[in-house]
Amino acid sequence: MAALPFALHPQLSHDTTPVGDLALARVLLMNDANYPWLILVPRRAGASEIVDLTDDEQALLMREIAQASRALKAVSACDKLNVAAIGNVVPQLHVHVVARRRDDLAWPKPVWGVAPAKPYEAGARDALMTRLRDALGVMLTQP
Amino acid sequence: MAALPFALHPQLSHDTTPVGDLALARVLLMNDANYPWLILVPRRAGASEIVDLTDDEQALLMREIAQASRALKAVSACDKLNVAAIGNVVPQLHVHVVARRRDDLAWPKPVWGVAPAKPYEAGARDALMTRLRDALGVMLTQP
Repeated sequence: MAALPFALHPQLSHDTTPVGDLALARVLLMNDANYPWLILVPRRAGASEIVDLTDDEQALLMREIAQASRALKAVSACDKLNVAAIGNVVPQLHVHVVARRRDDLAWPKPVWGVAPAKPYEAGARDALMTRLRDALGVMLTQP
Repeated sequence: MAALPFALHPQLSHDTTPVGDLALARVLLMNDANYPWLILVPRRAGASEIVDLTDDEQALLMREIAQASRALKAVSACDKLNVAAIGNVVPQLHVHVVARRRDDLAWPKPVWGVAPAKPYEAGARDALMTRLRDALGVMLTQP
């Protein structure tokens, strides 16, 4: 029997732009210029919690969280990283990795629900995307 | 030269009750009866980000997050786990693992800043603590 194919949740697809695929997770850039904000979505159909992954996948997810964290530190002058798997609204397992600055809109609060997303200017997003793909060592995902 | 000794941040000490020590992290129960809420604090002086840990410590932290997640699932009828390393206010690296229910006070929002902490009744906290230590396989921390 074929495994259930992975498909990105429509809400995540709507809110983000694809950066590329790591070994386990699809990396997305949140469409919100208020914060450099990546989302990692392990390509495992039906996973909702970190503990729904196998032990090996959990270890790989941690390595990819670290990889995304280092990439965000490399491309932004951030003061703190926020890493979170919440998923109360979108049940598909996804991990937020957000670069925070003491002068950002929500500081020191977590980012969720604080302010409406601010669209990127096309040029700014493309430039950030290039630097992120470089830092992550990934190419564009074929969605 | 001796390594800097680990000491729990006073704010975490104030807001929580110690559950016990895993191999890497001290496990704390948040003093908030609104949600079964654990906090894992890796006993590494000076760590503020997950990426401040070594690769091996990061892998161990992920295993302990999974262990805390399974313990919370075992002792609560939760609908979702929320796992997060924020640390914008308390810089010492700490990971929240919160058992969420669709009928809890903050649902579907994240828990931070939504409602004042509700003290546990002593009996209820002791009973929960016993079940958590059992599920985690730890004994009381000597603070």
